[in-house]
Amino acid sequence: MKVGLFGFGRAGKAVATVLLQTEEAHLCWVIRKSNVLKHRSVPEFLGIKRGEQGLIFPKDEWTPQQLFDKHPVDVVIDFSSTQAILAYGEEAAKRDIAIVTAISAYPPETVAFLKSLSRKTRVLWSPNITIGINFLMLTAKILKTIAPYTDIEIIEEHFKNKKDVSGTARKISEVLCLRDIDIKSIRAGGIVGRHEIIFGFPYQTVRLTHESITREAFGNGALFAAKNIVDKEKGFYSMEDILIPYFNLK
Amino acid sequence: MKVGLFGFGRAGKAVATVLLQTEEAHLCWVIRKSNVLKHRSVPEFLGIKRGEQGLIFPKDEWTPQQLFDKHPVDVVIDFSSTQAILAYGEEAAKRDIAIVTAISAYPPETVAFLKSLSRKTRVLWSPNITIGINFLMLTAKILKTIAPYTDIEIIEEHFKNKKDVSGTARKISEVLCLRDIDIKSIRAGGIVGRHEIIFGFPYQTVRLTHESITREAFGNGALFAAKNIVDKEKGFYSMEDILIPYFNLK
Amino acid sequence: MKVGLFGFGRAGKAVATVLLQTEEAHLCWVIRKSNVLKHRSVPEFLGIKRGEQGLIFPKDEWTPQQLFDKHPVDVVIDFSSTQAILAYGEEAAKRDIAIVTAISAYPPETVAFLKSLSRKTRVLWSPNITIGINFLMLTAKILKTIAPYTDIEIIEEHFKNKKDVSGTARKISEVLCLRDIDIKSIRAGGIVGRHEIIFGFPYQTVRLTHESITREAFGNGALFAAKNIVDKEKGFYSMEDILIPYFNLK
Amino acid sequence: MKVGLFGFGRAGKAVATVLLQTEEAHLCWVIRKSNVLKHRSVPEFLGIKRGEQGLIFPKDEWTPQQLFDKHPVDVVIDFSSTQAILAYGEEAAKRDIAIVTAISAYPPETVAFLKSLSRKTRVLWSPNITIGINFLMLTAKILKTIAPYTDIEIIEEHFKNKKDVSGTARKISEVLCLRDIDIKSIRAGGIVGRHEIIFGFPYQTVRLTHESITREAFGNGALFAAKNIVDKEKGFYSMEDILIPYFNLK
Repeated sequence: MKVGLFGFGRAGKAVATVLLQTEEAHLCWVIRKSNVLKHRSVPEFLGIKRGEQGLIFPKDEWTPQQLFDKHPVDVVIDFSSTQAILAYGEEAAKRDIAIVTAISAYPPETVAFLKSLSRKTRVLWSPNITIGINFLMLTAKILKTIAPYTDIEIIEEHFKNKKDVSGTARKISEVLCLRDIDIKSIRAGGIVGRHEIIFGFPYQTVRLTHESITREAFGNGALFAAKNIVDKEKGFYSMEDILIPYFNLK
Repeated sequence: MKVGLFGFGRAGKAVATVLLQTEEAHLCWVIRKSNVLKHRSVPEFLGIKRGEQGLIFPKDEWTPQQLFDKHPVDVVIDFSSTQAILAYGEEAAKRDIAIVTAISAYPPETVAFLKSLSRKTRVLWSPNITIGINFLMLTAKILKTIAPYTDIEIIEEHFKNKKDVSGTARKISEVLCLRDIDIKSIRAGGIVGRHEIIFGFPYQTVRLTHESITREAFGNGALFAAKNIVDKEKGFYSMEDILIPYFNLK
Repeated sequence: MKVGLFGFGRAGKAVATVLLQTEEAHLCWVIRKSNVLKHRSVPEFLGIKRGEQGLIFPKDEWTPQQLFDKHPVDVVIDFSSTQAILAYGEEAAKRDIAIVTAISAYPPETVAFLKSLSRKTRVLWSPNITIGINFLMLTAKILKTIAPYTDIEIIEEHFKNKKDVSGTARKISEVLCLRDIDIKSIRAGGIVGRHEIIFGFPYQTVRLTHESITREAFGNGALFAAKNIVDKEKGFYSMEDILIPYFNLK
Repeated sequence: MKVGLFGFGRAGKAVATVLLQTEEAHLCWVIRKSNVLKHRSVPEFLGIKRGEQGLIFPKDEWTPQQLFDKHPVDVVIDFSSTQAILAYGEEAAKRDIAIVTAISAYPPETVAFLKSLSRKTRVLWSPNITIGINFLMLTAKILKTIAPYTDIEIIEEHFKNKKDVSGTARKISEVLCLRDIDIKSIRAGGIVGRHEIIFGFPYQTVRLTHESITREAFGNGALFAAKNIVDKEKGFYSMEDILIPYFNLK
């Protein structure tokens, strides 16, 4: 599976690191905003020994058409900005290149644009693209169906300066039809990220917990997403959609 | 749903307590081994205010035929001994009374007998009948399919004098194709029971945890099992079997 | 050490259970409000096999003077009501009987009375008399001195219907000079009681956690308190005071 | 407080990062084995904006005498190798420069040498120099004294490829007079490091937990150690020794 990556900020670098270390994908190139590091190889920059993989291109070096002509890929992974998809989306869709994007802040019109692209190719959009969190949300949804009168509480823990309730916790709360106001937020020191969903039964307690270690978790999620949609039919997917088939037991 | 209960030991009493407190079942009678408490009402004995529910009968007061004639039920729940089913099983199956049994130590020939009964009625057999543990096992199985190369570790914690590795932990280990020898057993003070399944991803950790508070959890599990098989087709069920439909999302 | 117990409600029974099972104390009598169970033996009532220990007396059977004359003790443990101390306190102090009381709601004038008694005997007053919680509070206080700029968060978890923030959590918060409003309260199912103090350092996290299993924990705490003040000088003690000597390392 | 740092491997870099970000120390220089980065400034290399702090010197550029003459410091922190102290120790001790070393594998003769240096200056040696772990060990020791018959269990969790039982867990076990063989080791994914000490009381459980986030925790520990011994009398100190005064309550 040939992969192109848009975005080389903190998340983008973490994703590149994971892509370079797996046998399941070949990272052909990375597009970054600035000119810095132009044409240096990604493995070299990240200090990873991994042969002849992709080069870093500044975003204005190529038109999408040139890029996809010279450096064809099966899937693009987008950790850049809300803008990027507007530039390359049409060209990628036309060539049936799958699109995995983890940008959270798309305005409604860009979401609409994504959906229009999904009539031509496979598009997966997931603002929190880790396997663990998405798995936990589905799992919690199921447990709520099994035991609808159980009390559910959400605790999220993050580093001191994180503002606001975590978006992930709010997503969990929404999925479980709880009230955002009930999420308990812990802000302490350098905690990377921890989410715990507590199901209080009368005589037993179930706790579903996710702990983030580093942002490389996004890389594994993006890779999982890419692998899972590359052979699917065209359409608009979420991380949930590609996890659901694994839940259909027997 | 009319329920009869075999067994009034520690687990049996806990189950009776739960059955008396729900609107979803009517506890018609309890059969116990000894003559103690004969004909006293269950709510009275347990100190629960709950009208005209069941009486406590010593096991030799009735033949199963007499019992089911005089005090018909929809389902029997069995927390007694490995022997009881041999006495009442045939008669219950003949009348299409569903059977929920939580006895763990059935010898192979009794398991075979249970299966023969399941050709005439619905039989559910689950040595660990709590919702939480069975939910966790299914969930862990799914996560292992999603992320097959993840490291999985099991920690079980129980009170100081519990001998051997917990049967539940061994069941979890078996379901996940792990080695029993790798289960980490904590024995400390009065811990009622805690099972934790750790999924170690490279950059994130998922923890699935079950904490027992009291043995009344068996009551909720038995009630859930009874409700869910009472309308099913005849056959042989496990707790897993009745939980699986809840996992079929979308 | 001969012990007399005031109070035979839920906490009192739990305390009696512990006292009957230790070699470190002899439970001489229990005073309870009602006439029920009058003159029955405590071990018999609690279903514990433990020889010729104390009888249950209704509170109006004796004057304190008669009680202490006929049934002398070294220490009284009080889990009854705010009133009891007013009746027996003077008489106990006069005889140099140590007093351990766990009543939380004493009005200021009763606290003053307790202090006046402590000029004649040893009086220990602790609304939360478990070893674990008091240990945790001292420990947290020390860690705050070592690392004053660390972020501290408190999570308390209790059963669904527990009203208000837990008094214990508020005490912890006070001891650490935090704001009550920041305590995170989880209310779910049948959780007996769990308190967690999180110290967030920039690159590490310390969690101090206390989990209640049953209210018998009060019994161990009261026994520990009794043993530790019985030989001390007269004075007014808290649970903290008797734990502090254990902290003076080397 | 002027600080010189020996060692610029992974731990050394983490320590430098912390030292550059605090107002409590001024990092004058770093000595590293190789010639790489010679004379570049530490803040520049680490990408931290922090004025005119230390330069990176290869270890053979100066004799210790020249180094301490040209670049005097109050304390040296050593995260290099077992060898370094042999080169600079005598010279540092002669000038009354405090020494904080975190090297774990000193052979007995080097430990003896450290002790000889401590007759001339303050020497602190701690193989695990985080505040959290050392705090936990002291705390656990105290709780064991308070409740000697409590069951104690240790769980340590680390990344998949960590070999052997963690040295820290073995140290905890030793301090508590437990058997190493009873430590439960979890190896899963990318867990940075987690140690949990469980105290099982009959009716309550106390858990003391330490979670490592990144190795910068060593930096905070080394800084704390340096600050605390710089004004102490000459002598041989452990991390415990400098924490103990904080435990002497009242």
